[in-house]
Amino acid sequence: MAVAAASLFTNGGTASPKSFTSRYASVYSEVQNNRLDHPLPLPSVLKNPFKVVDGPASYAAGHPEEIAKLFPCLFGQPSAALVPDDSGDIAMGQSLKIGVVLSGGQAPGGHNVISGIFDYLQNYCKGSTLYGFRGGPAGIMKCKYVVLTPEYIYPYRNQGGFDMICSGRDKIETPEQFKQAEETVKKLDLDGLVVIGGDDSNTNACLLAENFRSKNMKTRVIGCPKTIDGDLKCKEVPVSFGFDTACKIYAEMIGNVMIDARSSGKYYHFVRLMGRAASHITLECALQTHPNVTMIGEEVFAKKQTLKSVTSYIADVVCKRADLGYNYGVILIPEGLIDFIPEVQQLIAELNEILAHDVVDEAGVWKKKLTPQCLQLFEILPQAIREQLMLERDPHGNVQVAKIETEKMLIQMVETKLDQRKQIGQYNCEFKGQSHFFGYEGRCGMPSNFDATYCYALGYGAGALLQSGKTGLISSVGNLAAPVSEWTVGGTALTAMMDVERRHGKYKPVIKKAMVELDGAPFKKFASMRGEWAIKNRYLSPGPIQFVGPIADKVNHTLLLELGAES
Amino acid sequence: MAVAAASLFTNGGTASPKSFTSRYASVYSEVQNNRLDHPLPLPSVLKNPFKVVDGPASYAAGHPEEIAKLFPCLFGQPSAALVPDDSGDIAMGQSLKIGVVLSGGQAPGGHNVISGIFDYLQNYCKGSTLYGFRGGPAGIMKCKYVVLTPEYIYPYRNQGGFDMICSGRDKIETPEQFKQAEETVKKLDLDGLVVIGGDDSNTNACLLAENFRSKNMKTRVIGCPKTIDGDLKCKEVPVSFGFDTACKIYAEMIGNVMIDARSSGKYYHFVRLMGRAASHITLECALQTHPNVTMIGEEVFAKKQTLKSVTSYIADVVCKRADLGYNYGVILIPEGLIDFIPEVQQLIAELNEILAHDVVDEAGVWKKKLTPQCLQLFEILPQAIREQLMLERDPHGNVQVAKIETEKMLIQMVETKLDQRKQIGQYNCEFKGQSHFFGYEGRCGMPSNFDATYCYALGYGAGALLQSGKTGLISSVGNLAAPVSEWTVGGTALTAMMDVERRHGKYKPVIKKAMVELDGAPFKKFASMRGEWAIKNRYLSPGPIQFVGPIADKVNHTLLLELGAES
Repeated sequence: MAVAAASLFTNGGTASPKSFTSRYASVYSEVQNNRLDHPLPLPSVLKNPFKVVDGPASYAAGHPEEIAKLFPCLFGQPSAALVPDDSGDIAMGQSLKIGVVLSGGQAPGGHNVISGIFDYLQNYCKGSTLYGFRGGPAGIMKCKYVVLTPEYIYPYRNQGGFDMICSGRDKIETPEQFKQAEETVKKLDLDGLVVIGGDDSNTNACLLAENFRSKNMKTRVIGCPKTIDGDLKCKEVPVSFGFDTACKIYAEMIGNVMIDARSSGKYYHFVRLMGRAASHITLECALQTHPNVTMIGEEVFAKKQTLKSVTSYIADVVCKRADLGYNYGVILIPEGLIDFIPEVQQLIAELNEILAHDVVDEAGVWKKKLTPQCLQLFEILPQAIREQLMLERDPHGNVQVAKIETEKMLIQMVETKLDQRKQIGQYNCEFKGQSHFFGYEGRCGMPSNFDATYCYALGYGAGALLQSGKTGLISSVGNLAAPVSEWTVGGTALTAMMDVERRHGKYKPVIKKAMVELDGAPFKKFASMRGEWAIKNRYLSPGPIQFVGPIADKVNHTLLLELGAES
Repeated sequence: MAVAAASLFTNGGTASPKSFTSRYASVYSEVQNNRLDHPLPLPSVLKNPFKVVDGPASYAAGHPEEIAKLFPCLFGQPSAALVPDDSGDIAMGQSLKIGVVLSGGQAPGGHNVISGIFDYLQNYCKGSTLYGFRGGPAGIMKCKYVVLTPEYIYPYRNQGGFDMICSGRDKIETPEQFKQAEETVKKLDLDGLVVIGGDDSNTNACLLAENFRSKNMKTRVIGCPKTIDGDLKCKEVPVSFGFDTACKIYAEMIGNVMIDARSSGKYYHFVRLMGRAASHITLECALQTHPNVTMIGEEVFAKKQTLKSVTSYIADVVCKRADLGYNYGVILIPEGLIDFIPEVQQLIAELNEILAHDVVDEAGVWKKKLTPQCLQLFEILPQAIREQLMLERDPHGNVQVAKIETEKMLIQMVETKLDQRKQIGQYNCEFKGQSHFFGYEGRCGMPSNFDATYCYALGYGAGALLQSGKTGLISSVGNLAAPVSEWTVGGTALTAMMDVERRHGKYKPVIKKAMVELDGAPFKKFASMRGEWAIKNRYLSPGPIQFVGPIADKVNHTLLLELGAES
């Protein structure tokens, strides 16, 4: 690591001027301070002379003919792999001017990607400059940046958050915005740009790469796979960074809540977990903790489940457990659950329509505009949820699905269902629900050893790809079940991950979200065990993330199962 | 440690029969497994021959004449201290029959108290039997117990939760209940009983001790100070167990949320923290993390603040930060906050009265029954809170104050206040609140090294007190800022911690809840720094609890400040 000015920050005395950083090691906690100098092992290929070799030509995830039209310069370009090379043609190259940007929601490890890029440039391209665009893609468009120095970067090493340069959700989309981006990279004379982001941001990165290439500009663009949601992955990119840490943080909390449930013996804890549409986080947390019920959105969708059938499923487990004398439990619910229930989608669509055009009268005459099945669903929803549906709208007047507290809704619906069963003598316990939402707690935790190392390699590899003149690739670090020394490093053609979607009559390129695969190893393992977890108490409490000792290097189950390194 | 049958549990193979335990090391996480054999250092005095010596006669915290009447046998009895004694008169005493019970809400470390008692008996009173009463005090009354064995106890060592024998909130209060308790201790021929609980449970323990003594029964009763809330403490009992771990877990989450706030730059996170009436947890978390605003209930009360003034205070900080370019922040709110606002108390009292006797009409005519100032307060409350006040009632029809989501209420009230300021040009940012409640996550975490060691010493000491014939004392381990070897061990007369309260025309003994003292060192330190924390970003992220390395043994600020070991 390049820590030339480390002493500036570790002794708690002098700190860099405020204009340069808002972090000071002097106000760091001991764990934060300890993490600063946590050694980051590099894959062997990055520690010795290497060269970048091309693989076979690439394709697209779908509609290759459309992707080819959208990316005439980049479509079909090969992936790249770093391989050992004693001739040392890459080592000690020219200095480069590189920009880096964080895009979208936070994920643990982002600072280490930047550290990796920086250290690569320091080690292999002496005299290089790394510009950090501030506040996400808007920083590129407005040419708002900070020049990253060893002193600036040091306090962020192995730390959570994105605040080294902050992030943002703006997109570079319109012709004017592309022009602004061009002006910035020309003004700064950038040789390359690293976009650290999720599926949309990497799609955007590829569009930028295509744009720059089509105009014969020298600026190359490399993406990095970021998102706690775990929905940006493919064969070459086995996992997005941040997923490992976020799941471990949520699993720590879930494990604690489980022991609480068993100790007090009187609550059902309904835990909603962040993760947008995909249920990867929920599935991984289930594998780490063994809850009594876990809803997986993708399965609910595949089985065409209704809100009623989901409710019955949970109520069934509650009743079975009551028979066994267990009047408590833990239930995991993915944030995106209701997006997967077709009838709910239909209801929301009808509500959006009605709310946009009609008067909602107190007497409820407006409800006659709902189709019968939607009216029926609406009427069985708890009142608080009905109100959320009617009141919580985005600026376009649409219902904000993400704001619906699904965990509270299910508690109330299960309660109602159990009351009915009580009346016919099928249940005779007291059901008490407690709701939780775990989300923001996990996005900015200090990265686990895995995420810290993985991110550093992603950044280091991105530096190598840029130096070798690559563009339109996503930094790809593989063989992750092996020791770090054996990890592979390279880049995957972003166009190879793309399909198109029809929007407003036009094809738009998209990196397909990786959803939970019902025939994938993680889901199959979960499915084979959930019956036992439901009625027996197989709770696992992973405990807080440890940063030292053999436990500290353990990797999440999803990744290991998908790699076939765990069964 | 007595781990004779350790191999039964650590190799993941054989486990004890289900009827004996619901825990199996074979389904433990690696951190859980590692904690099993975590060595627990003992204070030197417990490692060598010692004797128990009496201190001077004790008094009461208030109304000594009434306490003397309520506890004719026990009032005034001296505290006890263990001191080194080479004559070894206590070592290798007779075998004893001891019962132990967990009472009330969970707190990390309870299992270690039991382990401590057990190991003491194994080491000093060979052939003893330890009965674990199941499900709290009800287990005593119903004579529901398990005989604790090395095999049974082992999987719970250094683990969170109370599920070794579970807890309960029943009280032994009526003459019939006392009789049931008598029958149980006679049936089991108990020499002693250890009650692990909070202020109420320890008061109860003392009443039991008095009752047994007054009847010349041999059963002695010793209490142990348990509660994450930190409100059971005095000079001799510097901290209740569980406080250290719970605060560290909450502080981990708060630290993560802070970095998230700073990274995204667009949210104010309002975090409500468990802790019942007292604000110790909130204060400790503030000292560990440096939030922008921290409400301390005791201060709100002392300053006779209103809901409006609390709202203005928060809005002022938001505006000041907006001027500095910070449109984000973190605000800590103790669970008991609104209990400290007199006008809210008044409103709730009036509502309880109205709801009990009058019809609440939709048109709102019922509101005329509120006094003008209460009506005014009711009208400024957000609608959701008004509904919670009207709908959420306990079985007695009373408003359930603890269920009121104060953090959401304050978000809405601050939002309204800022909207008003916006209209007169005093604020021009976008305020977005995010609400959190951290509670159940912290009660059953794996105990920190401090809590693990402290609890073990509390239990070990309780064993010594019982062996030496003491009753009506609370196990007291002191000098906690020193290395463990120098910790003091003894017992404090429970009557010395008591005052009386007038209830239903009778005096009832109560251990006075220790509230946050506004002239105490922890509050003063906080008060001296909060101005800077409010407008500057001094966020500290403590990170996850570490179990190894020098950081692992750090103790919470509140304790060190109160002991004068930190400034």
